[in-house]
Amino acid sequence: MSPAGAARGPLVLIAGGGDYPVQLARALAAHGERPYVAALDGAADPAAFGDADVQSYRLGQLGRLLEELRRRGIADIVMLGGLPRPSFGALRPEASTLKYLPHFAKAFRGGDDHLLRGVVLFFEQQGFRVHGPAELAPELAAPEGPLGRRQATAEQRELLQRGFALLDALSPFDVGQAAILADHRVVAIEAAEGTDAMIGRVADLVARGRLKIGKGDGVLVKLPKTGQDLRMDMPAIGPDTLRNVAQAGLSGIGIRAGRVLVGDRAALGRLADQLGLFVEGFT
Amino acid sequence: MSPAGAARGPLVLIAGGGDYPVQLARALAAHGERPYVAALDGAADPAAFGDADVQSYRLGQLGRLLEELRRRGIADIVMLGGLPRPSFGALRPEASTLKYLPHFAKAFRGGDDHLLRGVVLFFEQQGFRVHGPAELAPELAAPEGPLGRRQATAEQRELLQRGFALLDALSPFDVGQAAILADHRVVAIEAAEGTDAMIGRVADLVARGRLKIGKGDGVLVKLPKTGQDLRMDMPAIGPDTLRNVAQAGLSGIGIRAGRVLVGDRAALGRLADQLGLFVEGFT
Repeated sequence: MSPAGAARGPLVLIAGGGDYPVQLARALAAHGERPYVAALDGAADPAAFGDADVQSYRLGQLGRLLEELRRRGIADIVMLGGLPRPSFGALRPEASTLKYLPHFAKAFRGGDDHLLRGVVLFFEQQGFRVHGPAELAPELAAPEGPLGRRQATAEQRELLQRGFALLDALSPFDVGQAAILADHRVVAIEAAEGTDAMIGRVADLVARGRLKIGKGDGVLVKLPKTGQDLRMDMPAIGPDTLRNVAQAGLSGIGIRAGRVLVGDRAALGRLADQLGLFVEGFT
Repeated sequence: MSPAGAARGPLVLIAGGGDYPVQLARALAAHGERPYVAALDGAADPAAFGDADVQSYRLGQLGRLLEELRRRGIADIVMLGGLPRPSFGALRPEASTLKYLPHFAKAFRGGDDHLLRGVVLFFEQQGFRVHGPAELAPELAAPEGPLGRRQATAEQRELLQRGFALLDALSPFDVGQAAILADHRVVAIEAAEGTDAMIGRVADLVARGRLKIGKGDGVLVKLPKTGQDLRMDMPAIGPDTLRNVAQAGLSGIGIRAGRVLVGDRAALGRLADQLGLFVEGFT
């Protein structure tokens, strides 16, 4: 991460899917900054960025993107948004990209952190500085305390703390950004399926009578892995997360303040209130 | 666990669902022992025990069972087989059972280990000795080495060791008897959903192109939690586990020798060979 206040030149936002890249572009615009947007084909919709300076790139056009960035004198990068984990064979690299492939072949053999560390390292070796979204727009990350009116009770906090400890214990294995605790125990741990699928699994267990979640019980915890590089892979929750959590009959969400993206805090707080959930950041 | 060779009197087998209680009764018969079988209503089919001395009990008839055991002079217990985690309210306790409820009310507030420790403690306080199935019939547990012809390769062993370490790290949280590793990473961790549902989730991720499992890749690990009481809750694999693992495109199963039930070793080894899987016990 670049030191606070370090000199920074013009910025490229390499945008994957979801609303967060758009929200980041909007936050940067509010700071008076207009980044060049490289919208990753099949993930980001260029039109969503309004009148931004935006262009689509396939993953296999990495060489072309680097050339464009050099032409524009851009040495500062921020990357954000979902990307289906690409198969190495599906990259369809252009000629200008082929020479970079050996670097990535190794990065593909491992967990997500391993892959993403490889991507950061690659850009740094090419002379770029990689910035995190929360470094550029801290207002998009979870604050400490509740986003809406509800706060976790003492009993819910106890479940949340156990969940945070569980995820910390999983960190060395490069897995587990989220878990669900209910009925005094751990009922789901996220791995390759993603947070929404994990929440859906708990909803399903409840629907089939395999799991009972009483009123005020059931919490989702989400936080980065210990040592996770927040420049490349910051955990996020959003409106869909809240809706899924409510649908599953859980009572709220605990996240690490400053280390999980929440986007528009006020809007998410209002939605939490409507759904009867607590959404709370903890240091 | 009673010391090896300790005096033991007549035995009751408290039988839940699945084939393992029947296999245990058969193994005991081969040792020349005919236990009294208490088949738990809704889980165990009394008819499956052939000509054994068998009677059905509801969970709420605990008091009646204890009276019968005392009448018969039975002080040695073995419990085996699946049981849907009962809701405390659904027990429908008979009058003779009501006095025991306070003991269990607390045990229900926690993970599985917590609940099962409470059950063992209860029987011990009532003057019974609780034995483990592998103590009474070691031939039903996984041996060291492969069950069939196939053995894990060096690469598969590396995945298995990482999986064993992951599950050990989860043990303090009273969760996680099984995990799946593939594509150089952890792809699924079991919590409340059970092993078969976890395997099904991985099969589903593969079917939807979210996960790629190459030939010879993909392993299931299963073992008891550190300190888990193997008298009450011994992890098990069986023919269905092997079929599900093969169906999901995984290459094999690693288990802890002596600490995971496999039932009829020879039959499971033959099935592993048919399905092209390794099934191997590690110390």
